[in-house]
Amino acid sequence: MITIKEIAKEARVSIATVSRVLNGTGGYSQETFDRVNKIADAHHYLKNAAAHTLVSASSKIIGILIPSVSTSFSGYIINGIEDAAYAAGYDVILAHTGIGGDERRLLENINMMRNRQVEGLVIVSNQFTETALTLIQRLRLNTTLISTSTRNNSLPAFVIDDVAAMHAVTSYLLSIGHQHIAIIGADPDDHVTGAPRIKGYRDAMMDAGMVPSIAWVQRGDFSYESGYTGFKRLYSGEHDITAVCCVSDEAALGVIAAAHEFGLSVPDDLSVTGFDGTRLSEMVRPRLTTVRQPFYRMGKAGTTALLQHITSGESINGETFPFEIEIRESAKPLDTQRRGE
Amino acid sequence: MITIKEIAKEARVSIATVSRVLNGTGGYSQETFDRVNKIADAHHYLKNAAAHTLVSASSKIIGILIPSVSTSFSGYIINGIEDAAYAAGYDVILAHTGIGGDERRLLENINMMRNRQVEGLVIVSNQFTETALTLIQRLRLNTTLISTSTRNNSLPAFVIDDVAAMHAVTSYLLSIGHQHIAIIGADPDDHVTGAPRIKGYRDAMMDAGMVPSIAWVQRGDFSYESGYTGFKRLYSGEHDITAVCCVSDEAALGVIAAAHEFGLSVPDDLSVTGFDGTRLSEMVRPRLTTVRQPFYRMGKAGTTALLQHITSGESINGETFPFEIEIRESAKPLDTQRRGE
Repeated sequence: MITIKEIAKEARVSIATVSRVLNGTGGYSQETFDRVNKIADAHHYLKNAAAHTLVSASSKIIGILIPSVSTSFSGYIINGIEDAAYAAGYDVILAHTGIGGDERRLLENINMMRNRQVEGLVIVSNQFTETALTLIQRLRLNTTLISTSTRNNSLPAFVIDDVAAMHAVTSYLLSIGHQHIAIIGADPDDHVTGAPRIKGYRDAMMDAGMVPSIAWVQRGDFSYESGYTGFKRLYSGEHDITAVCCVSDEAALGVIAAAHEFGLSVPDDLSVTGFDGTRLSEMVRPRLTTVRQPFYRMGKAGTTALLQHITSGESINGETFPFEIEIRESAKPLDTQRRGE
Repeated sequence: MITIKEIAKEARVSIATVSRVLNGTGGYSQETFDRVNKIADAHHYLKNAAAHTLVSASSKIIGILIPSVSTSFSGYIINGIEDAAYAAGYDVILAHTGIGGDERRLLENINMMRNRQVEGLVIVSNQFTETALTLIQRLRLNTTLISTSTRNNSLPAFVIDDVAAMHAVTSYLLSIGHQHIAIIGADPDDHVTGAPRIKGYRDAMMDAGMVPSIAWVQRGDFSYESGYTGFKRLYSGEHDITAVCCVSDEAALGVIAAAHEFGLSVPDDLSVTGFDGTRLSEMVRPRLTTVRQPFYRMGKAGTTALLQHITSGESINGETFPFEIEIRESAKPLDTQRRGE
């Protein structure tokens, strides 16, 4: 292994210059820069991270697995993860696994993370297959989950309480006079997020003495499209709905768009609530009444806990974050809507 | 260096089992899995990527530098980059540099990429400082730019023609009768994107014999907020504006929100156009008339060209992509608006 001193000698420059070159801070000619780097590279100077990884058995990398980075909330989570990693001197490898669960790509990416010797793995909002979960556990990868969880809570999760959150927003709609309330966009077979949100809705309705009809629960995949088609399907059969709670802000925009096509104005003819509290919910008119999840904080806290586990062995305790009901303009009291019952 | 055969012998299992364990494909007990991995790790079995990097001088990693992943279009670009990398067997390291140009973090991240021995760098929509640009060139990193460019075109860029795009959307507004047209959200000192878009607008106006007043150009930073404050500032002084072309879909939503507060309805009282063609522009009502940029394709093509350069030495030729004017509902002919001139 060559030292900085030896590089300086061979390059006929000062040690300080070698240091500046290797850190890219400027104050040297291109000729000096190239000469120093050439010598450092020829001798496999240990500044390079791959060599550092072998010697120290510490890659200083964590991995992020995420279905897609183009959903509206994932950016906030990634920013939180990246800020926490940066603060701790860690770098981040990103792999997306595709929406809709391409299991082969998920498994390949988990293996890739392992081969890259990531010290920890942050999984964002993924649907796991049992095989993927088994692989992660077998590899004994330090893992933390953001905005998702496993069915048996076998991995630490940084989440909100989906049952409580959907219960709260449904109760809000009930409190302003609505009774005929539908829920649109959740998949009842999705035990991580969909089913708990439907349960929260159903519990709130039952608590108020309402028994939701089957048609009031329109399944979907959280997307704008499932909000749009869900409301079309619902409204074709049922005209007495006065409010819809959606499982994402995007689904709420889909419902509003479909309502628009039936000549219904939101909130004058129909109240609609979102979920997530993305920037989207504030940028549209009417602004969405929604459930705000603290995505950035969830990403940051989950990653910080993971890194503390890696560096000092503290165990990772998952955390359930508080949510907020943001009351804005897309829902209003039944007695102020044009179409009451 | 230990071979798979030697691992198999030491672990008392078949070569096929070792292979299955090291690839995580299942079909073995946890006990076997652990034993094989322990032996492989103890002998620094070369499957691990850090060792592979040292031996082959090929890290199979590319880096992405991006200001933030929570702006509405960056997700599409990252998906395109990641899909191209995945197809070529490359992994992706992500670093965000913060919005508003934290130069220290940008320089640190460029150095980090170099220390990780990335084979190439994809820079998305970043504003460069001269220092950062100099560092990239000095490091002789293979670099490609997506949705941004350098002032002297010293690095290959995958972009649209911003002058032509803003000229086209302004001409569209002129063609449907508008004359008093403002532009909101661009920074005239931003030579990469802001200034070219203002030029496209101004050229189209001049071609139609209109001389835009100074107040018609409201500067900003592409954000919702700059659309909102830009329209408030504009409309407080000028009431004869009938159309506004914005430099992003988010800025257009800001203009619509501010117009709303003045009691103006879009498009009945005011026509507004967006820029980018994000999903956002389709999810809102009225849907935005906008300029569609093929972000996913730009990310994929730029990365594919970068990887071809890395693997076979082909030179990277930047590409100017076609844009589309999506005509939807947020702009309408002047003679059908309630407030003409």
